[in-house]
Amino acid sequence: MNPFQRLVVAPGQMAGNQVDLTPAQQHYLSRVLRLRPGDRFIAMDGHGQWWLVALTENAAQGQVLTTIAVATELPITVTLLIAMPKTGLDDVVRQATELGVSQIVPIHSARTVLNPSPQKIDRWQRIAQEAAEQSERQVVPVITAPLVWSDALQTWNTRQSICYICQARDHHPHLLTCLEEARNQRLGGGGWKDELSATQAPQPSRPILAISLATGPEGGWTESELAVAIDAGYQPVSLGDRILRAVTAPLVGLSLIASVFEAERGNGEQG
Amino acid sequence: MNPFQRLVVAPGQMAGNQVDLTPAQQHYLSRVLRLRPGDRFIAMDGHGQWWLVALTENAAQGQVLTTIAVATELPITVTLLIAMPKTGLDDVVRQATELGVSQIVPIHSARTVLNPSPQKIDRWQRIAQEAAEQSERQVVPVITAPLVWSDALQTWNTRQSICYICQARDHHPHLLTCLEEARNQRLGGGGWKDELSATQAPQPSRPILAISLATGPEGGWTESELAVAIDAGYQPVSLGDRILRAVTAPLVGLSLIASVFEAERGNGEQG
Repeated sequence: MNPFQRLVVAPGQMAGNQVDLTPAQQHYLSRVLRLRPGDRFIAMDGHGQWWLVALTENAAQGQVLTTIAVATELPITVTLLIAMPKTGLDDVVRQATELGVSQIVPIHSARTVLNPSPQKIDRWQRIAQEAAEQSERQVVPVITAPLVWSDALQTWNTRQSICYICQARDHHPHLLTCLEEARNQRLGGGGWKDELSATQAPQPSRPILAISLATGPEGGWTESELAVAIDAGYQPVSLGDRILRAVTAPLVGLSLIASVFEAERGNGEQG
Repeated sequence: MNPFQRLVVAPGQMAGNQVDLTPAQQHYLSRVLRLRPGDRFIAMDGHGQWWLVALTENAAQGQVLTTIAVATELPITVTLLIAMPKTGLDDVVRQATELGVSQIVPIHSARTVLNPSPQKIDRWQRIAQEAAEQSERQVVPVITAPLVWSDALQTWNTRQSICYICQARDHHPHLLTCLEEARNQRLGGGGWKDELSATQAPQPSRPILAISLATGPEGGWTESELAVAIDAGYQPVSLGDRILRAVTAPLVGLSLIASVFEAERGNGEQG
C-alpha cells in the first residue's frame, strides 16, 4: 500500500516549491490524519502531475520534496455518456473513476426522470475526486453538467473519438468484439491515430485513441435516440445476453475498454 | 421488455401442469402486481427451466401453459470466491448475478473483518434470486456459507476449473490476456474440455469450461494466502493499473469472463 495520503490541489495553490493548503485540507491533514510537521503526503493537480510534499511548521503550507512518476492512467481517453438512472449514479461515478474514465457526461434521455440540482453535480465531482485519490489515479475525471442527448452528440461523435452505444435485446455485436477489432486495427495501421491526432494534443510515446461510450436509462434508449446516435457514427453494441441494470452496464463497458487497452500495454511491455 | 413477471419456484411446487404458489408469491402476484385469473407470469426453477404460467381462479395455483426456451446463461460455469469486504457485498451479489455468476463463495481471509449471520447469507440468496429474475437469467446463483480460504481451496481448484486470483501491485499478467489465451486454447485443441468433462456433467452442444475467480478483501490477500493459492494451481492476475476497491474488482473480473466467452459465442453464431 502507498503510505501517503493523496490530496487534490488547485493550480493556484502551487507557488514555487510551496503548497498553500485550504482550511479544509489543513483540518484534514492535521486533525483527521494527525500529521505533524515533516510528515509527508502527495499533492495531485488532477491532470497527471503528482508531488511528494512535507507538512511545514506552519500547518497552512507544504514543502514540495520531489515530483512523482506514476502510470495509473489509461493509454486512451474515455468518455462515459450515461443516461441518468433514477438512483445509483453516486456509485457509478465512484466505480467509473476506479476504472479510469476521463469524463462523465450525464444525459437527459427520453426515459430519464432524474433532474439533478447543481449541488448534486458538485457531489458527483467530489466523489470522483475521492475515488481518484483512493484508486491512485493521476487525473480526476470531470463530471460535466447534464446535456440532452442531441446536444451531447454535437460534441461527442466520430470527429473526436470512436463511439459506442449500448443497447440490450437487439443482437448487436458484443462491445468486446468491437474493441478487439479497434485494437488490432490500431496495432496494424494506425489510421485512427493519424485521424485523431489532428484534433487532439498528442501524448508522448503513445498512439492517441479516444473512446466515447453511451449507456441507456432504465428501459433503454428509445428507437429515435438510437437512430440519431447511429447517424452520428455510433456503433450499437451488446454487453451480453442478460439484462443489465442502468447502473451496471457502464461498469461492464468501462471494464472492457480499460482492460483491452491496458492488457495490450502490459503485453507490449513484456514482449 | 419482457412483459411477464418472473418468479422462482421450488421443485416441490411443480405438480404436473400446476404450480402451487406460496402465500408470499400469492400476495406478490395478486396484491402487489394485481394480476387477475388468466394473467400470465413466468416460473423459473433456478436451474435453467422456465415455464409460462397463467394464474387460476384459485389464486393459490398457476396453470402451466408452455415451457420457454431462453439462452441468457453463460456457456461456462463461473464461481466467484470473494474475500468478504466490510460493506457492499449486497451490491456485489446483485451485480455478479447480472453478470452471469453460477456460485458465490464468501471467504474468511486474514484481512476479512465481516462475520455474517445466517440471516445475512439468506439475504444474499434472496438478492441473487431477485437479480436473476430482473436480468432474465434461467439459473439463480447459489450463495454458499462462508469458508476459510484453505478450506475453499480443497474444493475450488484446478481439478474442476481454471483458477485465477486477483492481486494488485504485483505486475501479474492481465486477466483479459489470460482469458484470451484460455479461449484460444479451447478453440484450438479442447484439452480442457476433455480434462473437465471427466469431472463435470457435460452440457449438450458446448464444450465445458469452468472458471473460479478469487478476489481479495480491503488491503488484498496476504502473501501466504497468495502462496497457497498458487500451490493449488491458481494463476495470479492483474485487473489493471489502478487500485480497485474490494467491491469493484469482482465486477471487473466477471465482466471480462462473461464477455470473453459470450463474445466468442456471438462471433461463432455470426460466422
